Amino acid sequence: MNVLLLQQLHQPLKYVQWDVPVPEKGAAVVRLFAAAINHRDVFITKGLYANIKPPVILGSDGAGEYRGRRVLIYPALEWGPLPAHQGNNFRVLGMPDNGTFAEQIRIPRGNIFEMPEHLDWEQAAALPLAGLTAWRTLFSRCRLKKGEKVLITGIGGGVALLALQFAIAAGAKVAVTSGSPEKLEKARRLGATITANYREEAWDKRLKQEAGGFDVIIDSAAGDGFPALIGLANPGARIGIYGGTLGKINNLSMQPVFWKQISLLGSTMGSPQEFGKMLRFVAQNAIIPVVDSVFALADGNEALERMEKGEQFGKIVLKIM
Amino acid sequence: MNVLLLQQLHQPLKYVQWDVPVPEKGAAVVRLFAAAINHRDVFITKGLYANIKPPVILGSDGAGEYRGRRVLIYPALEWGPLPAHQGNNFRVLGMPDNGTFAEQIRIPRGNIFEMPEHLDWEQAAALPLAGLTAWRTLFSRCRLKKGEKVLITGIGGGVALLALQFAIAAGAKVAVTSGSPEKLEKARRLGATITANYREEAWDKRLKQEAGGFDVIIDSAAGDGFPALIGLANPGARIGIYGGTLGKINNLSMQPVFWKQISLLGSTMGSPQEFGKMLRFVAQNAIIPVVDSVFALADGNEALERMEKGEQFGKIVLKIM
Repeated sequence: MNVLLLQQLHQPLKYVQWDVPVPEKGAAVVRLFAAAINHRDVFITKGLYANIKPPVILGSDGAGEYRGRRVLIYPALEWGPLPAHQGNNFRVLGMPDNGTFAEQIRIPRGNIFEMPEHLDWEQAAALPLAGLTAWRTLFSRCRLKKGEKVLITGIGGGVALLALQFAIAAGAKVAVTSGSPEKLEKARRLGATITANYREEAWDKRLKQEAGGFDVIIDSAAGDGFPALIGLANPGARIGIYGGTLGKINNLSMQPVFWKQISLLGSTMGSPQEFGKMLRFVAQNAIIPVVDSVFALADGNEALERMEKGEQFGKIVLKIM
Repeated sequence: MNVLLLQQLHQPLKYVQWDVPVPEKGAAVVRLFAAAINHRDVFITKGLYANIKPPVILGSDGAGEYRGRRVLIYPALEWGPLPAHQGNNFRVLGMPDNGTFAEQIRIPRGNIFEMPEHLDWEQAAALPLAGLTAWRTLFSRCRLKKGEKVLITGIGGGVALLALQFAIAAGAKVAVTSGSPEKLEKARRLGATITANYREEAWDKRLKQEAGGFDVIIDSAAGDGFPALIGLANPGARIGIYGGTLGKINNLSMQPVFWKQISLLGSTMGSPQEFGKMLRFVAQNAIIPVVDSVFALADGNEALERMEKGEQFGKIVLKIM
């Protein structure tokens, strides 16, 4: 079978032949038709993770066929027994275990879930890791309730977009931020009712005036802009944090955090149970993940380059013939 | 009646005669026998709050008699209807409303609670504001469970000590930090099993080696030492924050916060319902608040000075004859 292999760090992935995996006890072999790119895949090719041991097939997101059923793959292994956090053996799929940038994957049977019927292969492959992360952050951690006001920062990435779609489907009123007017316009078409360009001066004060504060804020930037989010938070607000792409937080005062009874809630990935709930929610609400672009598996390096540029709106998907 | 009055900012309080309050609809007059000092009282005399309008009788904590019953006063007004946070009209008792540094106080009937039987006046007066803050932070916000490991920073203040006593009574294993070896020794006598002096180098690494990480951390310092607490947190840990005496937090990375699924939970005061639960817990577990020292109401300025020095271990109490 053909796979996209990390053969050496800091080198393009190689499109090569690989042995077809053989089923094992408790594990099944899924024929994949689409995969999707995550920031993690880019970081791994750059050697930004510990203990990367090439050769390895990257990829966490995969949609395919198993025994005549259309299935999605839970994008991690060994979450462990506790809802509150993953266990010590937890791994995201694709390094160290071989991932989804391949025509076939061997995966524990417990990782195989029914694919929502209304999605095609590419849309479905856009869902697993981003949808799981958005679901846990928004519902398990921030406990979003109908009628609440939500702010999602940095709209355009897979998690932020699915958080937007999930929050709207859950009956929330959603605002988004971006540095790109085009992305803000696209987010409006998806249902965001308020938008703010964080490159404009005093954007947070204007946003507060317009929206009056937020009950739930979803952020993956952290960095120097983070304290502004505390100012935008309502009393009792929950701020879900699933990344820190802009680096460390400075100048953070605790006075508004304790006086407003704010919760800052770190969140990463999610359990198989949460994955199942997320898929049911997507099916019930006919949510269609936004696909930015589709590349052939053989063109995986172009897909990684597009992700690195950060210009995408939605998931970058690999089509597997 | 005699009261301790803030007559002018930046001046010592005045021990003066004041009109005895008259009962009103829904409000009762309580004869007070003991009050206690909080940092808030010191901050107010220094003008560090907005909208301070002298003359006003300070004091949030009071124990006394109402219709032959020994009672404690819920130390705030108008929490509002929501458990998650106080409403817009919420006020801590003592500025702008007259407080407990007086022989009598008029207070809404809903603020009057049965005093735990095993306490004397001074011990009881040490409980309300500190106990309420500790209770909400530890149980309502951090949801401490039996068998968990707790770290309480800066032991010696009223909230930290009651958090220590509450956590031990709830079946937790408790570690404490302080810059004072004497306070650490006293905390051991109260049941802390692990202690760390934060003035020693690499105190956090040694503490992690000894304790192996914490499920719940209670902090009111914030400041530059805060990121060390993230390192001491177990996966799924809750960090309750009820103050920020050492100023803003810098250099805070979100990577361990989201990867370890940590929750940073701001907390202040608590509702009348939480106050009632706290008093029942204190009664059931025969918890005796630590009284650092007792001053006569007329010597209130000496009591405030002692608090300012920060050398106390436990509450500084005013005895009202």
